[in-house]
Amino acid sequence: MEKNYLYFHDRFGGAEEHLHGVRRIIYEVRTPYQFIQVVESPTFGKMLIIDGDVQSSLVDEYIYHESLVHPALLTAHSPKVVVILGGGEGSTLREILKHKSVTKAIMVDIDKDATDIAKEYMKEWHQGAFDDQRATLINSDARAFVESNLSNNSVDVFISDLTEPYEGGPSYKLYSVEFYKTIFDRLKEDGVFVLQASLLRVTNYKMHTIIRNTLKQVFPIVRSYFAYVPAFDTTWGFIIASKKNDPKTFTKEDVDYMIKERITGDLRFYDGETHIALFNLPKDIRKLIETETEVITDLHYIPLERKENL
Amino acid sequence: MEKNYLYFHDRFGGAEEHLHGVRRIIYEVRTPYQFIQVVESPTFGKMLIIDGDVQSSLVDEYIYHESLVHPALLTAHSPKVVVILGGGEGSTLREILKHKSVTKAIMVDIDKDATDIAKEYMKEWHQGAFDDQRATLINSDARAFVESNLSNNSVDVFISDLTEPYEGGPSYKLYSVEFYKTIFDRLKEDGVFVLQASLLRVTNYKMHTIIRNTLKQVFPIVRSYFAYVPAFDTTWGFIIASKKNDPKTFTKEDVDYMIKERITGDLRFYDGETHIALFNLPKDIRKLIETETEVITDLHYIPLERKENL
Amino acid sequence: MEKNYLYFHDRFGGAEEHLHGVRRIIYEVRTPYQFIQVVESPTFGKMLIIDGDVQSSLVDEYIYHESLVHPALLTAHSPKVVVILGGGEGSTLREILKHKSVTKAIMVDIDKDATDIAKEYMKEWHQGAFDDQRATLINSDARAFVESNLSNNSVDVFISDLTEPYEGGPSYKLYSVEFYKTIFDRLKEDGVFVLQASLLRVTNYKMHTIIRNTLKQVFPIVRSYFAYVPAFDTTWGFIIASKKNDPKTFTKEDVDYMIKERITGDLRFYDGETHIALFNLPKDIRKLIETETEVITDLHYIPLERKENL
Amino acid sequence: MEKNYLYFHDRFGGAEEHLHGVRRIIYEVRTPYQFIQVVESPTFGKMLIIDGDVQSSLVDEYIYHESLVHPALLTAHSPKVVVILGGGEGSTLREILKHKSVTKAIMVDIDKDATDIAKEYMKEWHQGAFDDQRATLINSDARAFVESNLSNNSVDVFISDLTEPYEGGPSYKLYSVEFYKTIFDRLKEDGVFVLQASLLRVTNYKMHTIIRNTLKQVFPIVRSYFAYVPAFDTTWGFIIASKKNDPKTFTKEDVDYMIKERITGDLRFYDGETHIALFNLPKDIRKLIETETEVITDLHYIPLERKENL
Repeated sequence: MEKNYLYFHDRFGGAEEHLHGVRRIIYEVRTPYQFIQVVESPTFGKMLIIDGDVQSSLVDEYIYHESLVHPALLTAHSPKVVVILGGGEGSTLREILKHKSVTKAIMVDIDKDATDIAKEYMKEWHQGAFDDQRATLINSDARAFVESNLSNNSVDVFISDLTEPYEGGPSYKLYSVEFYKTIFDRLKEDGVFVLQASLLRVTNYKMHTIIRNTLKQVFPIVRSYFAYVPAFDTTWGFIIASKKNDPKTFTKEDVDYMIKERITGDLRFYDGETHIALFNLPKDIRKLIETETEVITDLHYIPLERKENL
Repeated sequence: MEKNYLYFHDRFGGAEEHLHGVRRIIYEVRTPYQFIQVVESPTFGKMLIIDGDVQSSLVDEYIYHESLVHPALLTAHSPKVVVILGGGEGSTLREILKHKSVTKAIMVDIDKDATDIAKEYMKEWHQGAFDDQRATLINSDARAFVESNLSNNSVDVFISDLTEPYEGGPSYKLYSVEFYKTIFDRLKEDGVFVLQASLLRVTNYKMHTIIRNTLKQVFPIVRSYFAYVPAFDTTWGFIIASKKNDPKTFTKEDVDYMIKERITGDLRFYDGETHIALFNLPKDIRKLIETETEVITDLHYIPLERKENL
Repeated sequence: MEKNYLYFHDRFGGAEEHLHGVRRIIYEVRTPYQFIQVVESPTFGKMLIIDGDVQSSLVDEYIYHESLVHPALLTAHSPKVVVILGGGEGSTLREILKHKSVTKAIMVDIDKDATDIAKEYMKEWHQGAFDDQRATLINSDARAFVESNLSNNSVDVFISDLTEPYEGGPSYKLYSVEFYKTIFDRLKEDGVFVLQASLLRVTNYKMHTIIRNTLKQVFPIVRSYFAYVPAFDTTWGFIIASKKNDPKTFTKEDVDYMIKERITGDLRFYDGETHIALFNLPKDIRKLIETETEVITDLHYIPLERKENL
Repeated sequence: MEKNYLYFHDRFGGAEEHLHGVRRIIYEVRTPYQFIQVVESPTFGKMLIIDGDVQSSLVDEYIYHESLVHPALLTAHSPKVVVILGGGEGSTLREILKHKSVTKAIMVDIDKDATDIAKEYMKEWHQGAFDDQRATLINSDARAFVESNLSNNSVDVFISDLTEPYEGGPSYKLYSVEFYKTIFDRLKEDGVFVLQASLLRVTNYKMHTIIRNTLKQVFPIVRSYFAYVPAFDTTWGFIIASKKNDPKTFTKEDVDYMIKERITGDLRFYDGETHIALFNLPKDIRKLIETETEVITDLHYIPLERKENL
């Protein structure tokens, strides 16, 4: 009976509001950093909601996490050391560990409660990844860790799987040009930095383009791409910032060959043809992302509202 | 003040409901065929809503209409006669008339009230297309017109821009294998049939795959593709069914060359790179669309609910 | 942060929908009889929801339960034996036990899960009433119990605290004229029957007036009254059907005197002045309730939709 | 088809939101003072909405307007001169003119657009009252008019039919103790002042109690009462402030006699029994309204949020 559902209201800017039916709340808690809810949706299965934003759903999280991980790891050619900033659910870790070359995957998430919840209530996401011998979970501030615990030229791939710095939240220091310079220095010479980079559609794109433009101050190669994630009701943006290699030059056949050689286990979303779809952008989006001039610095934050254009 | 908006509720299946703020209703009427509303949204500008479904918005209708028209007309090589089934707003007509080769564009829409509303209240959509000397508007039943008023081997491109046949509505006879056979016969030997083909995402795809499978009973080449339309909050599916040429074989450069040679006026969404993005589908969607076995016939309608999987 | 609430949608007929924010679900279960949710609202505190209908909230349940119990028990003069039909939360029982004359309060609720939930999660409602020596809880069908386990002329007050028989649900046999005749027979000569009797407002009244008219076939004195309950967003109807005494004849002073003599513990809503307010009805409501002609019988159920007029 | 409705969202405080289906917008305009919408609801018929708040609906406006006008005019015994502050729709005027003793009814509403809209689109409300020879409509600031254009001891009844001074809006100077003193002076010795006085229910009452306490600084007799108005989904408060007579002393018979002698035309809500219901308040509400200590002055406004307690 539909009438028994509760509804989660996902509030976009500009008078848009998306209601998702919820069968039940599986777990919820206010941690020192965020408000976390694990709920069950009749459409999307189990869903993770943080501070009122859908983070991922069981039905389609593979789209988001495969898009985030594989293009970057293939761009890095033979990545050994991978560092995740954030990444609570453990799915990003899961996808990284499918790459045979990886010897060390370090996940730095400030919120121990969040990763404990993932371990306990989101086993379908991490699928035991936290127990893999190559994996290390560190609950501390990601910027401090990168600055103090990593040496230059030591990391193959950084993956930023953080919530966005809306309304000047404290996470914005993980999006500044100063931090990106440190990331650049810690990367090896063919190193790659990939970020979840907010929603990207013609009515909402500003957060994406500002992150992109900030990265362009530091990295020679910066590629935006997006995938449609049903639980978000929108296309979602990602950015690869690379020191040397360019994922856009890969052919369908290149990608399919690399997947075959370098990845174990099945992928559901990503393959050669998907790669071509991801890295060829529609004309309107290409135009939008090229005109941005703002840069986030440690002292200059652009106060974007949640899911809203400037 | 946000609190003064009214809200349009776009009801998806499975307990999903999307609310779009509405500043005002510009016009609305119940015609003999449908309930039509032209409203103004703070996010999407003017919007056309038919029977509770968003049809198009001023902000992003170019995505839908360029995706529907240009790949098909380029696939046909040098189309002269183009027939639109439905197409109320006049935007499909507008895009067709950008092709220099077109000498005759016939639009057959059963609802005279709908096309009158488009002429009067949606000038930003049609931009005077109805007045072009090459255009003919006929308000009658599309199937009867195709069967009785067109001869075999006479049409270069058919464009189906109709609402979907949900819940066994009368439009389903425009989606049957028998009708598709008539379309096939009326087409010239390199003729192309393109359809708007319902929402296509991993949680909602059944209407698309049934239309696709029905077309495959008749046409040798059938290509699904999709574009994300923000006002729909979902990726939207299209299908090209072709007698001879295959749009998937075009390179980026092919498409950019054809656009330059054959199209006048600007395109905002479609170009060579967009074409590559459209016709390379993610792995999960490719898998979904290949497994369908249902076929719509004049006597066998599959009773799908609105925006719902079976 | 408001945006983290889930929302419960309370659907009235006629395109009315009331959204109540929910902080968390405290407990929920589908029993063999109904879907029960105990949630926490920022406005109303803990709330009980059954099959999508708000049953009571911590902030205002005293209005509903005092209105249901005290006018009836004062009308019966010196009630000893009181029988509750339904009454899940235990609040009706709690109020009955405030009357010094009561020696036996029997609560007959078919849903053991519901009363177990009340005992465990709704202690603020029952306040230990289930443990009172005068109280007996029986989990069985109320009609069968009244027919088989009670003798004629043995009960002072019956209290019907059941959900309404919408859409022909099985509870309608607790609303038929045949069952009301049995109730009449089981009552002592100054016995009283009081019912929660659905929402009563000028836009929604049909369920109330049909119950009332059915009672009028059996009882000589039938009095409708209503109280506004904020968590319901509407005035809620009750009916006293009496064999001999008429609560409308009581003065303010009568009621205040009886409360002082016969009731222990505090009342928050009901007193002499409240009684006068309850039993004097506005002209429009008086007119509405006098014109009903339908009667519910065991064989003739009137299929009302939820919270809807005919 | 329900799915074609737009919805008006009536936002209460504390995470409560009431959605009312809207068939169509009949008229809407932003005046210099407010945003006015006349819409058609399937449940409530034509509705007037100002700044996102339901003002009145065709189905139940008689409850509000009869409650506002008749108790006050009967309290004044033989009122000749009546002044309305605000009163846009013209229904308050309509009810006043039913009193045979009235020789002059002056309506002072600052918003000429609002009264023009009422004249044109809300004829079912005013029913021609604006054309009555005894009626005068003045579009100017009510406070300035009362201060400058009326002499002391000249008015029988003042009726305040204004929107509430939420969030420090400019109307708050029509709610200050200084203005109430002027009202007192302008009234004759048995004069009466009646106000619509915001929603009054146990979860939302602060605006009412502050207005009430402000009046108590000036008038010897102050009586709160309320009526349930379905389109508001809440009980609505009114206050009579009187120099000499007390409506609470009237019996049912007194009121019915006065109605018969002094009023022409039918009343649908108000009569003797209704009067008794209105002026006997439940115990919880009596307690709430007695404890207020705040007073609105010209220099001290209490910044209440819309429909929200402090």
